[in-house]
Amino acid sequence: MEINATTLWRDILAVRTKAPLVHNITNYVVMNSTANALLSIGASPVMAHAEEEVIDMVTIAGSLVINIGTLSKAWVAAMHKAMKKAHELQKPIVFDPVGAGATPYRTQTILELIHETPPSIIRGNSSEIKALVEAGIKTKGVDSTESSESAIEAAKHLSQKYGAVICISGATDHILNQEEYVRVENGHPMMTKVTGLGCTATAVVAAFAAINPSMMEATAHGMAAMGIAGEIAAKNVAGPGSLQVNFLDTLYSLSEADVHSHLKICA
Amino acid sequence: MEINATTLWRDILAVRTKAPLVHNITNYVVMNSTANALLSIGASPVMAHAEEEVIDMVTIAGSLVINIGTLSKAWVAAMHKAMKKAHELQKPIVFDPVGAGATPYRTQTILELIHETPPSIIRGNSSEIKALVEAGIKTKGVDSTESSESAIEAAKHLSQKYGAVICISGATDHILNQEEYVRVENGHPMMTKVTGLGCTATAVVAAFAAINPSMMEATAHGMAAMGIAGEIAAKNVAGPGSLQVNFLDTLYSLSEADVHSHLKICA
Amino acid sequence: MEINATTLWRDILAVRTKAPLVHNITNYVVMNSTANALLSIGASPVMAHAEEEVIDMVTIAGSLVINIGTLSKAWVAAMHKAMKKAHELQKPIVFDPVGAGATPYRTQTILELIHETPPSIIRGNSSEIKALVEAGIKTKGVDSTESSESAIEAAKHLSQKYGAVICISGATDHILNQEEYVRVENGHPMMTKVTGLGCTATAVVAAFAAINPSMMEATAHGMAAMGIAGEIAAKNVAGPGSLQVNFLDTLYSLSEADVHSHLKICA
Repeated sequence: MEINATTLWRDILAVRTKAPLVHNITNYVVMNSTANALLSIGASPVMAHAEEEVIDMVTIAGSLVINIGTLSKAWVAAMHKAMKKAHELQKPIVFDPVGAGATPYRTQTILELIHETPPSIIRGNSSEIKALVEAGIKTKGVDSTESSESAIEAAKHLSQKYGAVICISGATDHILNQEEYVRVENGHPMMTKVTGLGCTATAVVAAFAAINPSMMEATAHGMAAMGIAGEIAAKNVAGPGSLQVNFLDTLYSLSEADVHSHLKICA
Repeated sequence: MEINATTLWRDILAVRTKAPLVHNITNYVVMNSTANALLSIGASPVMAHAEEEVIDMVTIAGSLVINIGTLSKAWVAAMHKAMKKAHELQKPIVFDPVGAGATPYRTQTILELIHETPPSIIRGNSSEIKALVEAGIKTKGVDSTESSESAIEAAKHLSQKYGAVICISGATDHILNQEEYVRVENGHPMMTKVTGLGCTATAVVAAFAAINPSMMEATAHGMAAMGIAGEIAAKNVAGPGSLQVNFLDTLYSLSEADVHSHLKICA
Repeated sequence: MEINATTLWRDILAVRTKAPLVHNITNYVVMNSTANALLSIGASPVMAHAEEEVIDMVTIAGSLVINIGTLSKAWVAAMHKAMKKAHELQKPIVFDPVGAGATPYRTQTILELIHETPPSIIRGNSSEIKALVEAGIKTKGVDSTESSESAIEAAKHLSQKYGAVICISGATDHILNQEEYVRVENGHPMMTKVTGLGCTATAVVAAFAAINPSMMEATAHGMAAMGIAGEIAAKNVAGPGSLQVNFLDTLYSLSEADVHSHLKICA
């Protein structure tokens, strides 16, 4: 594992050059903003959830995003199918357990999905990561109220159980698997006031996972690109509305100098 | 009932401090923009519509938004469930009858929903409010073509029948229950060129309803906050695109001085 | 057929004055941005997909958009119903075959829909247009990787088979029916980095089709309005985020002078 400004910039260029197709089965709230972020970073997004086509779609994709933000029965069936096929084809599956712990249905559905087909990467906030390990944890909706540090033990447990890279996002992003650990310190507090930037991070990680076989590197690179773009975009903005606009502009125009001067990573 | 710049500012601070969880069962068009507006005003949005989880979700929420903009069968069943549970737990239900009168299915579905569980607050434009009272009224899609004044009699009737606060939004917002009446004169004509700002108003009202037990005060405060933010945001914008961005920035940064200098209310 | 800056400006004014109701059965990703573009150009958008109401909705609409971007069974049934009713009432149907060729389900569903009820206009990128003619064509997701020229033969074939106007959009837009051919050269490369601007073009064409009985003129006017607005909007933007915002502002404020100085059409 090698993660630094040079490897990050190399992988940003690879995403821009290869424009990997990222297949998203994601929630209604973030479909538009996620697609725009994927286009801005240089990937090619597709959103498709019909049971009749998810297998064919994941077959031509470079990676698969599963985000359970606005669940319902038919979609869960499609998620199972797409995950199985991605696993069979050894394509990265990046899983976002939005609101885990908020309702029993949500937590149980997630556990069934990841138990049947272990994802390559799971990215959530601390409440969500903890809810997947401790039954009955109290979650307040979809926004986390706890520090990301508090979920590190739960993340280690999850990683061991599913063999996945776990990313706890927050002021600090903690990324780990069974042997390795990376901390990304980029980002800006106002990012929590733009809906779905967590979901966007998951999708951006999937773009990097489509072009780099190391899931640790892909996760760290994706989270760092998000954090750096958010940090630069937040300079001199008047609020979350302009942050969202600047964020896409910044992702699109991220330069080697931006990466080298802003990356705060501890590998 | 007391509604003035001081009470409005007090309640804006309360929303920012308490960050109430607002559970939205709303339409696809506005999910993203509504969630962003709720975050900007300081609330915590959650969108969830699965029959399997709406009861649990509304149980942890501070208020419930029901918006029938993009109806279908499964969603209506979830709306019924969520409304019943909210009523049982005495949590405010804010109802948005989008496009009432446009099709018989829409009008009938709304009437069934509010007949079974009367909402705390109903917010619509004049065509929608009238369509809920007069059968066969001619509605042109989801945008109103009539003045808000023309629906006051219908609103009084609705309020009596369901015991709800009714808000007719438009150039002037008329807010009434069986005993009280308030008029809010804030806002800007260009707001009608941004999709879903009516739906957003409903959700913002729900944020205030989660922290103030007076539904009249909550409705007036929510509509006034929307109108003031829209008015300030519309200054010097080039069109609806920048209005939408500035609107979120302004909601986020609304100050005591903004409230005192802009509020145009007649209580 | 007459298509030039004078006729384009005349039809922009007609859309602004008549504010035609455009009924969209479209995909989740673009609902918000499409509705905003329709409002900015001066039309009145409505999104409705319930089988129980699509017939009533299309009856009061000026035109119908069918966009299969995020397909599923229940929606396809509603599309069939709405298309049949629109055809019966002689209202323009504008069809967007998003991602045709990406999966067999997608291609087959499109062919079934347009075989049962031929649309008035089909707008797609070159891969999509070709996929509707040549079985087994290789499509990479929803973004086209080929020039629009390469699909002209396929477009002619489609036009003959279904009696529809075909628009192949790209750097150059090719618009044709069995007798006529128009080329629109407006637009900007960065428009491909904003999600759903193709879908938006389809909806804007539907706004023009609601006020001009010539489907060739409506398509050319719609595509030209999109291209001119995109071109003006792209001046001095920092990236796709601000392009999206400027694009709406520009559509809203498009002037006679803008149209006359920018239109690049070959009729």
